[in-house]
This record gives sequence, structure tokens and C-alpha cells, in this order.
Amino acid sequence: MNDARPAGGVLSGLPAAVTVVEVGPRDGLQNERVFVPTEAKIAFVDALAAAGLPVIEVTSFVRPDAIPQLRDAEDVMRGIARCAAVRYAALVPNERGLERARSCGVAEIALFTAASETFARHNINAGIEESLARFAPVIRRAHADGMRVRAYVSTAFGCPYEGRVAPAAVCAVMEKLLALGADEISIGDTIGVATPTQVAELCALLLRHADPARLALHFHDTRGTALANVLAGLLAGIAVFDASAGGLGGCPYAPGAAGNLATEDLLYMLHGMGIQTGVDLTAVVRATRLIAGYLDHPPTSKYYAAATS
Amino acid sequence: MNDARPAGGVLSGLPAAVTVVEVGPRDGLQNERVFVPTEAKIAFVDALAAAGLPVIEVTSFVRPDAIPQLRDAEDVMRGIARCAAVRYAALVPNERGLERARSCGVAEIALFTAASETFARHNINAGIEESLARFAPVIRRAHADGMRVRAYVSTAFGCPYEGRVAPAAVCAVMEKLLALGADEISIGDTIGVATPTQVAELCALLLRHADPARLALHFHDTRGTALANVLAGLLAGIAVFDASAGGLGGCPYAPGAAGNLATEDLLYMLHGMGIQTGVDLTAVVRATRLIAGYLDHPPTSKYYAAATS
Repeated sequence: MNDARPAGGVLSGLPAAVTVVEVGPRDGLQNERVFVPTEAKIAFVDALAAAGLPVIEVTSFVRPDAIPQLRDAEDVMRGIARCAAVRYAALVPNERGLERARSCGVAEIALFTAASETFARHNINAGIEESLARFAPVIRRAHADGMRVRAYVSTAFGCPYEGRVAPAAVCAVMEKLLALGADEISIGDTIGVATPTQVAELCALLLRHADPARLALHFHDTRGTALANVLAGLLAGIAVFDASAGGLGGCPYAPGAAGNLATEDLLYMLHGMGIQTGVDLTAVVRATRLIAGYLDHPPTSKYYAAATS
Repeated sequence: MNDARPAGGVLSGLPAAVTVVEVGPRDGLQNERVFVPTEAKIAFVDALAAAGLPVIEVTSFVRPDAIPQLRDAEDVMRGIARCAAVRYAALVPNERGLERARSCGVAEIALFTAASETFARHNINAGIEESLARFAPVIRRAHADGMRVRAYVSTAFGCPYEGRVAPAAVCAVMEKLLALGADEISIGDTIGVATPTQVAELCALLLRHADPARLALHFHDTRGTALANVLAGLLAGIAVFDASAGGLGGCPYAPGAAGNLATEDLLYMLHGMGIQTGVDLTAVVRATRLIAGYLDHPPTSKYYAAATS
């Protein structure tokens, strides 16, 4: 995925292909106020798979009362069609979640911690070290069952409680997760505060301690900088980016603001730059259209707005 | 404005400071469906000046029936407070427009042509060569009166009629405008289709034929790529960027879609990267808030949405 390709002018060394990890059904819908009916979620995931997205995070096996929007995790996982080319992933918080995920045939799990201690305590009710200790047996069991393990390091650029987060703190959590055996680490700008220089600086540090093939970037577009940050990530050598169809998700810390980077916007930019993804942008717009009618606001993707206006 | 500064990782050679050209009162309001009352326009321009924006394109001296949204050009120009630190500019289509602008004390004019022949014929009712011939006496007279002259080359990346526009076509128009004496050329992605590689390639070509100090970039955020394109422009050595407070303007070719790059989003990114602009971002949000109530839709700036939610 990291073959250098010729590019014009100052943008050199861009990857020839990028893996887009679709997180709309999980990270997106978990942060929407409405509950989307199970059948609509299934149709949405199937449409995303049909669009060619190589990885889809389908749902989250947390306690139903903690995230009621995803209380139908088992029904969604069992209801979707399984496309052989797609990796269907699910978030699990602990061993109990892993059991539930396995019972539905999940082949890849995602774990969630933070680079900010205060955010971790608020969001997952555990300090960073405690969360890592909890992950150790989950990763062992997942690997024993042949599952791939992805881990999120959230608030990697800024925290709603602590403000700016030090790159060294992010790097320390990443290294511990890699030592625990996580296959891929997704570095998240959870509140959408990052700018490209910060991305370049953090990536330069992380890549001194990790193979680029094991790193992903997860941007939120709360202040409009997500695609510029993707460009900084591409220039640093990262070739895996998370995105959410339609920009589903909003920002829980700024109601009414944009949240996840929209898959459509990411694809439009990558394809325009000649970077392959294997994803059909028009088909992603169709998938978003399927779910848009269930939301209480229009999707925040600018490409989607332009394509459907 | 082009002193190289140290920057982290892969982003090197970024300018230390950027000039933001505020085009909301002209390019923004001209593309809104509503007529904003004259007093509100005046308060908006005065608030933008108070925010520290160094250049404000205030209005357009075209025929009032052509752009009724700006039919109060004289009243706005005469009503605004004049801040000594601000260059107040206005668009003029011809010598008659120049006369009107001069009668109101405009110190900088903007001319508008295109890199696409079909777009020029549709938008300014003249082919490119005809528009340049019309500009020649305007530029001479403006310079004789001590006015600065800026020229827009619109549809520099794509055209709603012709599709992709060749960089050589943009370069040819730029060179003719420079030969006519235009002080600054603003290269415009009028329909918001550009991606960073295209920006890098076009800038590399243009900078072989022009001093970077005479070039500006004007992006629309119709597909979400504007800030990524700004980053590509910064890396190429451009240090003047146009933007519109709140993202005012929409896109006439995709109703409901975003138009001009939002000044707030641009400032957030530049300041986060340590690039100075001299502009107070919070004060720009206040200016947008002044005008937002007159529009028939919320401002499209993502930073504005986050800051006011």
C-alpha cells in the first residue's frame, strides 16, 4: 500500500493506494441522537459493502444501556450479508464484549482507549493503564481465535478536558498497545482540533516507533481541517484512514457541529489525487442516502450535499 | 510574507505569515439568494475590518439588474467606516464600473475573467480575449489613479461546462493579465472541484512564470477539499488566500452545497499551524453572526458551527 508514486510539484511520495476504514455504522450511529431501526442499519452496512469498502466497523458490543443507539448489535451482525472481500469489525470493551462479538462471527475487533487520562476516565470509566490491563486478555483470546485486533488511541491531538495532548503521551500508549499485540493502531482526533503541522509532528514521532503499515489516522471534521490533516498524514507515509459515510456522528462536545470525516469527502480527494481505494464513491452516496432519512439533521458531508443538491 | 519557518516532519518551508483576502461581502453575498439590507452589509464589513482582516472585497460595481444582491454598492462603500490598516476593494467589470468605484473612494479594484472560454461567455458575456481587451484600459486608468489591481482567473481547475481545465490554459491567462499590469492574480476553483495534487501541479507551472508574491489562491469548499488545497498551496509557496466569512456564498451550480472556503476554517488551520494572519478568529465569528440571521440557511463554516453550537 505504500509504493511511492510520482506526484506533481511539492507533493511527492504519496501512497499509490489507501485503505478506507468505514466507521459510520459504529462511530457514526453511536453519536447520533436517534435510534436507527435495525433493518435500516443492515441495509446501510450491506450498501457500504457493495460500494467496495474493504473494512466496515459494524457495531459495538458494549452494554445496551451505555449506548442505546447500538443496542441491536447482535441483530445487526447476524442480519448483514457477508461479502468475502470485506472485513467486518466490531468494537468490544472487554472479554464479555468479545464473547458476544464471537458468537456473531465477528472476525476483527476494535478496542478503545485514549491518550488523555481524564478523557479515558470519563469515556470508558477507566484510566489508560487500567484500560490496557483490561485489553491484554482480550487481545490474547482474540488472537487465539484468529481475530484481527485494532486499537483506537482517542484524543491524540486534543482533549475536551485537558486541552492539547503531548505527542509523547500518544506515542507511549501506542507502544504499549503494539507490545500487547494489537495489529493496527488508529490515532484519533476525537474532538476535531488537529491541524496539519500537528499531524506531521505526531506522525514523525510515531513512525520512529512503529511500522507505517500498522498505523491508521482517524480525523473528525469539527473545524473543517480533516482533509488537510489526511494530506499531512499521506505525506508522512500513512495509508489507512478512518471515515464515516455522510459524516455521520456529529460531535458530542459541540452539538450541531460536524463529527467524523465523511467517507465521500475523503474518497473524492483521494481519487482526485490519483490514489486508489477500490471504493465506488457514487455507491457510498447511495448508502448515505439510505440512512439519511432516519437522522434528525442532514449529513454533514460536503460532497454528499453537492452530489444530492 | 514568504520567510521559511521550521515546521515539523514532512511539512517544511511553510510561509511564516499569510494574507487572508476577505471576499464574503462581495463573492459571498452575490451568491446568496437573499438581499441583505444595506445597513447590515455595512455593519458586516465594519466588523470584518475590526477583526483585523487586511483586505476586504466590499462589493461589486456591476449593473444592479445583473446582480441585484449588490445593487447598493455605492451606499455600502460610502457607509463603511474606513480603517487605515484595511485595503477596501471592489469588483468592477469595465470602465463604467471603475468610474462608479472611484466616485466612492475605492482604492483597489478586482477584475474577473476565466480560464474556460465557455464559462467566460456564460458568466461575463465575453470570451477570454475580449475580457482581457476590456481590462487593458481599466487597468491603465486604475493605475493612473493610484489604485491597486487584482484579477481573478476563475474556473482554473474545472468548469461546469467544459470539465477539467488544462493548467496551460490557466497559465496563459495569468501571463496576459500580468503583462497588462495586474498587481495580483487570484487563481480560482470556482466550482470547488480541485484536489491537492492538481493544486501542486498548477502552482508548480504558474510559479515558473510568476513571482509568488503576485499570486493568490481562491478555493471553494463544495466537496470539502478547500483546506487541503490551501495546504498544497502553502507547500508550493503561495501566501495569499481568499476566503469568505461563514463560508457565505453557496455554489450556484449545486444549490444547497457549500461555496467559498470559510474564513473561520482557514484561520483556524493557519493559526494552528503557527502561521500568522493578524486576524482575530473570534471576531470573525462575531461578524458572521451579524449577517447569519439575514440568510436563508446556516453558514457553512464548520468552525463557525462548532463555535456557536
